[in-house]
Amino acid sequence: MTGRPLDVLEESLDAPVTVHLKDGSANFGVLAGYDQHMNVVLDPTELEGSTDDEVEDTTIIRGDNVVSINV
Amino acid sequence: MTGRPLDVLEESLDAPVTVHLKDGSANFGVLAGYDQHMNVVLDPTELEGSTDDEVEDTTIIRGDNVVSINV
Amino acid sequence: MTGRPLDVLEESLDAPVTVHLKDGSANFGVLAGYDQHMNVVLDPTELEGSTDDEVEDTTIIRGDNVVSINV
Amino acid sequence: MTGRPLDVLEESLDAPVTVHLKDGSANFGVLAGYDQHMNVVLDPTELEGSTDDEVEDTTIIRGDNVVSINV
Amino acid sequence: MTGRPLDVLEESLDAPVTVHLKDGSANFGVLAGYDQHMNVVLDPTELEGSTDDEVEDTTIIRGDNVVSINV
Amino acid sequence: MTGRPLDVLEESLDAPVTVHLKDGSANFGVLAGYDQHMNVVLDPTELEGSTDDEVEDTTIIRGDNVVSINV
Amino acid sequence: MTGRPLDVLEESLDAPVTVHLKDGSANFGVLAGYDQHMNVVLDPTELEGSTDDEVEDTTIIRGDNVVSINV
Repeated sequence: MTGRPLDVLEESLDAPVTVHLKDGSANFGVLAGYDQHMNVVLDPTELEGSTDDEVEDTTIIRGDNVVSINV
Repeated sequence: MTGRPLDVLEESLDAPVTVHLKDGSANFGVLAGYDQHMNVVLDPTELEGSTDDEVEDTTIIRGDNVVSINV
Repeated sequence: MTGRPLDVLEESLDAPVTVHLKDGSANFGVLAGYDQHMNVVLDPTELEGSTDDEVEDTTIIRGDNVVSINV
Repeated sequence: MTGRPLDVLEESLDAPVTVHLKDGSANFGVLAGYDQHMNVVLDPTELEGSTDDEVEDTTIIRGDNVVSINV
Repeated sequence: MTGRPLDVLEESLDAPVTVHLKDGSANFGVLAGYDQHMNVVLDPTELEGSTDDEVEDTTIIRGDNVVSINV
Repeated sequence: MTGRPLDVLEESLDAPVTVHLKDGSANFGVLAGYDQHMNVVLDPTELEGSTDDEVEDTTIIRGDNVVSINV
Repeated sequence: MTGRPLDVLEESLDAPVTVHLKDGSANFGVLAGYDQHMNVVLDPTELEGSTDDEVEDTTIIRGDNVVSINV
């Protein structure tokens, strides 16, 4: 199981990620936390020129809405 | 798992949050409680100028309807 | 987890509540019971002027249909 | 948890109930059995003037289709 | 819990049953087996004049598709 | 529980089966493996005149998409 | 259970696979990891002439979106 999904999330903490949801939306932010259900916490980035999809506040996303996460 | 989702909820108790549901609705209120399924309890705020999305009564939201929570 | 969702239900026993379901319907009645899955039992109220949404018989609602409960 | 949902089903054994399903249909019959998943068994009633919704044979209904049960 | 759903299935082994699925289809056959998830196995019957809904081969139906079973 | 669903799968290893999915598609191939969730592995057959539905590569199908399996 | 689904994934580590999702999309990449829920991690390939479906970044796909995986 090299590179298990949750290990990849662990390595991505504090890095920018994009979370794609079942409703078709994308959420861009810094991965501030996660749990074993793939519930995730995103913080706004401090990058200039941030994207339309960037979260505006700290956002908890419930895992069962997640389709994929780009790290 | 720094900043796990439930830890973020714990830190948000008594603070105003917005809960986005799968039906597209948003629910604004003070986070009065939660559990490990991400079932949450919202109380109306006492802020002036409260929003259209504010809950009118104490409201229990079942976790499997939750898409995301802005804290 | 102050004011956990099931604790709020426990405190609402014998009180009138409105249960909103995923099919968009609302069910108004006296909370006669519940369990850990948020399955609930509603009894008709004996209030005059009761609403269109009031249950006519004792009604068991399966928890996975519940969106929210106003207490 | 006074009057838990499964306790109400237990008390309703051998009595006529209506089971409302997620597909919008209603099933009327005598409650012959149930289990912890709210799977239920309905038998036809022997009442005259029975309704359009009455089951014609012994029918097992899988619990995850159930919206509500009127007892 | 008199006449629990799985007990009724046990008693129906080797008898003809109709399994109604969430996609609206019906499957008629001899109940050859089942398990605790209500996964079922149907065999073709050897009756003359069998119905349009009869299974043509031994068919395993995954329980989460089942709405109801007439026995 | 004579002829439990997973027992029938066990007996069908290395035999051609058709797996019907919730999206309406059918997948024909040799049953190369399965697990308790009804996740299955299909290999292409080596039969001449194989059908339109035959898998082209070894294919893992996640069990929760399965409606039925003809063996 | 010869050739169990997860065993097939284990054997496919570091090889190119195509993951078909419930939304109808396909994702092509090198299988970098997986877990028991069939959550998978795909890396971009380094092959020339890669396909339209190839992932552009390391992508975690949540298992409950997966229909099938071609290995």
